[in-house]
Amino acid sequence: MKMFSQEHAKEKHTITEATKDVKKTPTLTMTNFDHLEKLRKRSTYVAGSCKEIRDRYNEQEDGLYYLTTANGMVYQTFCDMTTAGGGWTLVASVHENSVYGRCTVGDRWSSQQGNNAELPDGDGNWSNRNTFGAAEGATSDDFKNPGYYDVVAEDMSVWHVPNNFPLEHWNQAAILRYHTDNHFLSLYNVGSCSNRGPAIPIVYDHGDRVSTRMLYGPNPRGEFEPGFITFRAINNERAAMAICSGVKPITGCNTEHYCIGGGGYFYPDQCGDFPSFDWDRLGREQGWSASKEMTESAVLLFYR
Amino acid sequence: MKMFSQEHAKEKHTITEATKDVKKTPTLTMTNFDHLEKLRKRSTYVAGSCKEIRDRYNEQEDGLYYLTTANGMVYQTFCDMTTAGGGWTLVASVHENSVYGRCTVGDRWSSQQGNNAELPDGDGNWSNRNTFGAAEGATSDDFKNPGYYDVVAEDMSVWHVPNNFPLEHWNQAAILRYHTDNHFLSLYNVGSCSNRGPAIPIVYDHGDRVSTRMLYGPNPRGEFEPGFITFRAINNERAAMAICSGVKPITGCNTEHYCIGGGGYFYPDQCGDFPSFDWDRLGREQGWSASKEMTESAVLLFYR
Amino acid sequence: MKMFSQEHAKEKHTITEATKDVKKTPTLTMTNFDHLEKLRKRSTYVAGSCKEIRDRYNEQEDGLYYLTTANGMVYQTFCDMTTAGGGWTLVASVHENSVYGRCTVGDRWSSQQGNNAELPDGDGNWSNRNTFGAAEGATSDDFKNPGYYDVVAEDMSVWHVPNNFPLEHWNQAAILRYHTDNHFLSLYNVGSCSNRGPAIPIVYDHGDRVSTRMLYGPNPRGEFEPGFITFRAINNERAAMAICSGVKPITGCNTEHYCIGGGGYFYPDQCGDFPSFDWDRLGREQGWSASKEMTESAVLLFYR
Repeated sequence: MKMFSQEHAKEKHTITEATKDVKKTPTLTMTNFDHLEKLRKRSTYVAGSCKEIRDRYNEQEDGLYYLTTANGMVYQTFCDMTTAGGGWTLVASVHENSVYGRCTVGDRWSSQQGNNAELPDGDGNWSNRNTFGAAEGATSDDFKNPGYYDVVAEDMSVWHVPNNFPLEHWNQAAILRYHTDNHFLSLYNVGSCSNRGPAIPIVYDHGDRVSTRMLYGPNPRGEFEPGFITFRAINNERAAMAICSGVKPITGCNTEHYCIGGGGYFYPDQCGDFPSFDWDRLGREQGWSASKEMTESAVLLFYR
Repeated sequence: MKMFSQEHAKEKHTITEATKDVKKTPTLTMTNFDHLEKLRKRSTYVAGSCKEIRDRYNEQEDGLYYLTTANGMVYQTFCDMTTAGGGWTLVASVHENSVYGRCTVGDRWSSQQGNNAELPDGDGNWSNRNTFGAAEGATSDDFKNPGYYDVVAEDMSVWHVPNNFPLEHWNQAAILRYHTDNHFLSLYNVGSCSNRGPAIPIVYDHGDRVSTRMLYGPNPRGEFEPGFITFRAINNERAAMAICSGVKPITGCNTEHYCIGGGGYFYPDQCGDFPSFDWDRLGREQGWSASKEMTESAVLLFYR
Repeated sequence: MKMFSQEHAKEKHTITEATKDVKKTPTLTMTNFDHLEKLRKRSTYVAGSCKEIRDRYNEQEDGLYYLTTANGMVYQTFCDMTTAGGGWTLVASVHENSVYGRCTVGDRWSSQQGNNAELPDGDGNWSNRNTFGAAEGATSDDFKNPGYYDVVAEDMSVWHVPNNFPLEHWNQAAILRYHTDNHFLSLYNVGSCSNRGPAIPIVYDHGDRVSTRMLYGPNPRGEFEPGFITFRAINNERAAMAICSGVKPITGCNTEHYCIGGGGYFYPDQCGDFPSFDWDRLGREQGWSASKEMTESAVLLFYR
């Protein structure tokens, strides 16, 4: 199993050494045991968000913590305790399992029901309370936890992490990391191509406006402005994308080439979590196609 | 994210106020903290059902509690502690994610393998130990927890709650709520159109025989009698539906128009969790089509 | 619900007696309560594997225990505490939900994206950190927990358990149970039909070389040698199967008839968790078809 992955192999080696040592030096056993015991102690924390954990328990270490929703549902998720003061709660990840799939299995953020004009909202997971996946699997599959609808967000942080990277390497492996800092909180209605949702300026934690622009196709580069998170962008087919990660549409209505999730119908058949990132073939530096790095990176969403 | 839903917006506002106050008045912090702490205390309860929690810990508040199966699996689910004395354990919900889908992704209670004569039992989730979903998402997706096969049920309660309503509003939002009170416990074999499973008389907690009848299409109204839960109804194509929610078939064998779940093959292509609720178009007051309210409501199943 | 299953009926009866008695004899209540309380106590254990639980807490009873990953994720899984000294952690199960499906919904170990030459790795769950399912549902659906990538395995044990058998009967119901005992740990690269992954000799806990051979079709019987677990076998279409359960390919490259999981493309259209076990019809004692028992048994994977 693990033997198929180099990075797992390394882990295995490391941990194996530890295990071997266990049999020789009880001290090392305790180290390993104490490590797990420390992590288990976090299950006693009572908090609704990573920010509350930071403030109440003065935790400053990135990692998995237990959160409780207003209804009492308990779940584990990743807390970024270091970026810009920390306290960021991972609430979701958008992972494109196959750009060849057209709203098929695994396209939970758009639709798993095919490209269907009768289902403009698709699976509706952007606004309902359905949850799926696990924190440690957030770069290998779509992930949505109760924090998505329960945590009171003042700001948002986004990490673009190459698929299948393990949690302990997310921060380093990310091709792009940014967050807002203006405490946007207002409520917006469904927009249109010309009247879309809010575009929130972002602060880059990794990457910049230039690298953001280059991560999308040559054609759309003239249609958006980097340095924003835009919500509820609408394209020519009136399909609503949930989020434009890192950019703000400024002209044209071809948002399906650089915005993700949300809709259940696109024309022509370009449905999916990353609707049309492969318009001119996957990952070619040409036409409307987004870069291979972008298409093959999961988009992790944090609240604070 | 949350900004797409009015009700979420309200929540956000409320909770946000609380959060803001946190920084000003420690008392309010404690209030919020104490609320979560109270809910977390429930994790110390040892019980196999909501009835045991009611009896052992004298809890009378609706909400999420921790249950333990005979094998020791621990899970959280919603307990209705008020209806007819309380002690009702939410064990499952049947949610039609798309009446246009024909046993496609999301039709867990029927089949996700397409309308297939070689798979008459479909996914078989009515009788196996597979589980899926989470309590807070029970109106947004199919839900089945270990209580479904572990809780010792004497009676059953059913809530029909409009899709995507949040847990704290289920009771008020339900278009229909009813339960049995005759402690039915016997075991039934697979039936036929004329020899189906048991039909248990129900007590209405919200709605009545008249409103139940009107929730289904004009044509089938003459073929069933409201005021019952019927199990294992069989239709003309020999497909077994798991439950006829609120009614008892009396004539004809067109149960696919008012019974749900269970089968993996229907003719013509009318497969799905709500097999043929859209026979004469979705939600038209005509022919065999069930009402829009019924088709767009999740069916929540409770045991006691 | 439960009423559809004989074995559930039995359970229900038993437990119901207990419940009835509860109202009469408090002693029996305590028995039932103490049983659950004992199981809940296991949640205080701090361990990364069933072996550590066996060694640290001297547990010798098969059942569900809590494990913690190196990152602190807590999960419940089944521990085999009896076979060959015990300490086996259930980390996954491969369940063929429909041999008629060709890499459709439910084929998580191969691909849910259809038989697609552009997706040779399929869903990639053999090497990523995605997780799914629950321990008690391991014979009713695919199951993968964090132990799959977190537990440090020296050896592996495999149980072939008929679909839908409840956890408490797995051991008895298994049609085949075996494990390795040579502490294989090395890392292997992707192989080819002639240069495949490792073949580890196994020790039979139930069944033997003869019964293993008979569980597969007459044609492939001459192409493999029973008594091994083989990883990363490659077939004529260059598709990599993740594991050959119980056998080692020795000639020919028709591994899709007796190896499982892994690939995302097979020719002709024979994709699925059990790729081509139904080549000459499901469960016929003919040609390349595996036996009905084998095709309709979930494959449970343990580490130690």
